[in-house]
Parts: sequence; C-alpha cells; structure tokens
Amino acid sequence: MARMASPQSSRTRVRRLPHKQSDELNDLYALLDEAVLAHVGICEGDQPVVIPMACARDGDTLLLHGSTASRLMTDLASGVRACATVTILDGLVYARSAFESSMHYRSAVVFGQAEAVADDAKERALLTLTEHLMPGRAAELRAPTRKELAATRIVGLPIAEWSLKASSAPPEDDPLDLDAPVWAGVLPLRLTPGEPIDAPDLRATRSAPDYVRGRFSPTR
Amino acid sequence: MARMASPQSSRTRVRRLPHKQSDELNDLYALLDEAVLAHVGICEGDQPVVIPMACARDGDTLLLHGSTASRLMTDLASGVRACATVTILDGLVYARSAFESSMHYRSAVVFGQAEAVADDAKERALLTLTEHLMPGRAAELRAPTRKELAATRIVGLPIAEWSLKASSAPPEDDPLDLDAPVWAGVLPLRLTPGEPIDAPDLRATRSAPDYVRGRFSPTR
Repeated sequence: MARMASPQSSRTRVRRLPHKQSDELNDLYALLDEAVLAHVGICEGDQPVVIPMACARDGDTLLLHGSTASRLMTDLASGVRACATVTILDGLVYARSAFESSMHYRSAVVFGQAEAVADDAKERALLTLTEHLMPGRAAELRAPTRKELAATRIVGLPIAEWSLKASSAPPEDDPLDLDAPVWAGVLPLRLTPGEPIDAPDLRATRSAPDYVRGRFSPTR
Repeated sequence: MARMASPQSSRTRVRRLPHKQSDELNDLYALLDEAVLAHVGICEGDQPVVIPMACARDGDTLLLHGSTASRLMTDLASGVRACATVTILDGLVYARSAFESSMHYRSAVVFGQAEAVADDAKERALLTLTEHLMPGRAAELRAPTRKELAATRIVGLPIAEWSLKASSAPPEDDPLDLDAPVWAGVLPLRLTPGEPIDAPDLRATRSAPDYVRGRFSPTR
C-alpha cells in the first residue's frame, strides 16, 4: 500500500505509513487523467452528500461537471468545502484467508473549495472535459452555442491539498496459511468497452470512428 | 434519466422529475448487489471526507469495510451522519454536440448513521462481504480466527433513506444537429476481468478456479 500526500496539509498527512509519504504529483495526475468520474462530497450542515460527477484535469485544477439544476452544483459553486475522490479499481486480491483478501486500487482525495468556471472560460473547460471523456471527439463536433454555454455549469477544484493511496501488491498471507489447499492471486479488472451502439436516429451508413472503438483500450 | 427515492425522506425527494419518483427497491438492490465499492462521506466539522470502501448488502443493511485504523472508520462507527454513494458507469454517450454528450450510469445514494457490527455478528458480516466480493471463495477458505475478527472493523448503514439515479437513454440531440456529419451513439462500458495472476508464493500447479475466472462475466 503506497500512500502519498501533498506537502501542504496536515489533513492529508499519512498517519499509518509516514515513511511511504511523498508528493508524487505525477502519480496523482496519471490517476486523474485516467478516471472519468469523481465522487464529490459536501456537507449540508452535518449531513454529508456525495454525488458522482464527470471530471477532467486542467493543469492543477480538477474540473467537475454536473447538472446545472442540482443543489450540489450550486453549493459547490458557492465555495463550500468539498472533497473529490477518484478511485479506479484494478483488481481483486484472493488471499488464503478472508482477512487478508483485498483489492487493487488507486484512489485520490482532493480537498478544497471549488469555484464556478467563469463565463469566458466555459468553452475551454467544456472542451477539456469533452476531450478527456471522449478523446478525439471535440474535433468532430460543432462549437457550443452561447445558450448551451449559459446552461453549462462547471466548477474547478484546485489540486493543492490531496492524498493518494494505491494498492498493487500480491496477497500477503500469514505464513501458516501458505500450504492451504486453495489458489491465491490477483484477478485484474479493467473498464472495457463493448461494441458501439448506433443512435436510433443515426443517418445512413455512418459507423463508429476509431476514437470511439479505441476508448479505454489498453494501448491508449 | 430515471430517478427514484425512498418514500421516507424529504432529502431524497426528487425535485426535478417528481413524476418519475418511485421506490423501486429492487433496482436499488440490484445496483448494490453488483457494486463492490462505495464512496463513503462524513463531515469533519464543515470539511467533507470521502473514502472508497468495500461494500456488500445484507438484507436492508449496507455493510462497509475499511481499515480498522482509519479515522473515517472510527467516525463511522461512532454514528456520525454518513452518505454512501455507489456508482456503476455503464457507458459513454456520444451525442452530436458536447452539450448533449453524457454517460450511462446507475448511482445510489444512501444517507444514514452507521453502526459498528457487533463482535458476535462480525464473522457473518465478513462472510457476507467475502461472498459478495468474491463469490464462491468463502467455501474454500478457513474460518477467520478470533484475532482476525478482533482486527476487522465493519459498519452497517441502514438502507432506509436513499435515492437512485440511472441514465440509459440514447443521445438526445437537438433536431438541428441530426444532420451533422458525425457518428452518434453509445459506447458500452463494463468492468472486465483479465487473466488471473498467481501469487508469487503459490504452491505447485494449482490454477485459478472457475469462480475467479468467471467473476464479473456477463453470464453471472
């Protein structure tokens, strides 16, 4: 289990394995650049509310995109304290005991106060999100209209106070269990695309382009 | 977009599409029974903290399993207000505009106060988690030791106040965009297992059993 944190924060200081602490921004960015969803939490009084949102990194800002009408977006844009957590599940770890069984995953936690993306920066932010979620797509699409931009709400969360955890080790069984008559190892997991499904109102014989079929492929 | 909520709560009442509200517990349970991770939020003062945790449903309780040493587990077990959000990403929706592009997903939000699973119920809870995460596995493993159970912390969150959102529609483009020279449709996504990786200390010629290879397969 590797844990890393930004140097800025006592909140994100790793308590259990401080010797593994570092600020490996590259690992953080790699995770954020692979993920398409963040789970974003705010507090409404003492009640936490956690909602999934589309995410994309723009430099040292995590862009978050959700429904304009949602209360969470309104609260986020008002600058309440937020926590955006991005997790990718990489596998299941089959140890020789239930106790040592676990998962392979990478998870980043970003704390901070978000800001609404200003009107004059919205088109760029929407483009960044589109290209992150659907690489290759933006070049084929028309530009957003003024009305669409007005109806789009995107917030930016500074990537300044963060922590990162990753688990990628083989099962670590008790030595007494090593002769148990059971397989042990890791089942790797990966988000995998299926065959693209044409829109029912698709015109004529157009077929899904390579940038769609190749999305999430291991060679990307 | 379908939204559903438990009848108990004003917090989970659907504001935007009330005609679609229902309490389709079966859809909620199906999602929780497919997911292996929940993103669990609590408030530390006005700072939300969101952490991924292994999850499994036991009747009308959502079991959550995390590190015994983590502060979040301690807070959860003390009964602070919590929010567990479970999301499965089912696809990317390539519309003919960035504005209408979106995702297929199912997401459940469960609000409540968790309780630590009592010592005499821990073995059953650990078994439930193991069988949910790794179906077929528990039958092959030895029972947990008293020491392991003491070191295991599991909390249960009542599934009483919840909401459910699902998006599974084709792209809904502006009629003016239908003749745009661009493909439109959905790229389905699915968590897919790779080839099992033997533990480095695996004895002899044992190979991964079918219940490992078949995990997450579409025919399950």
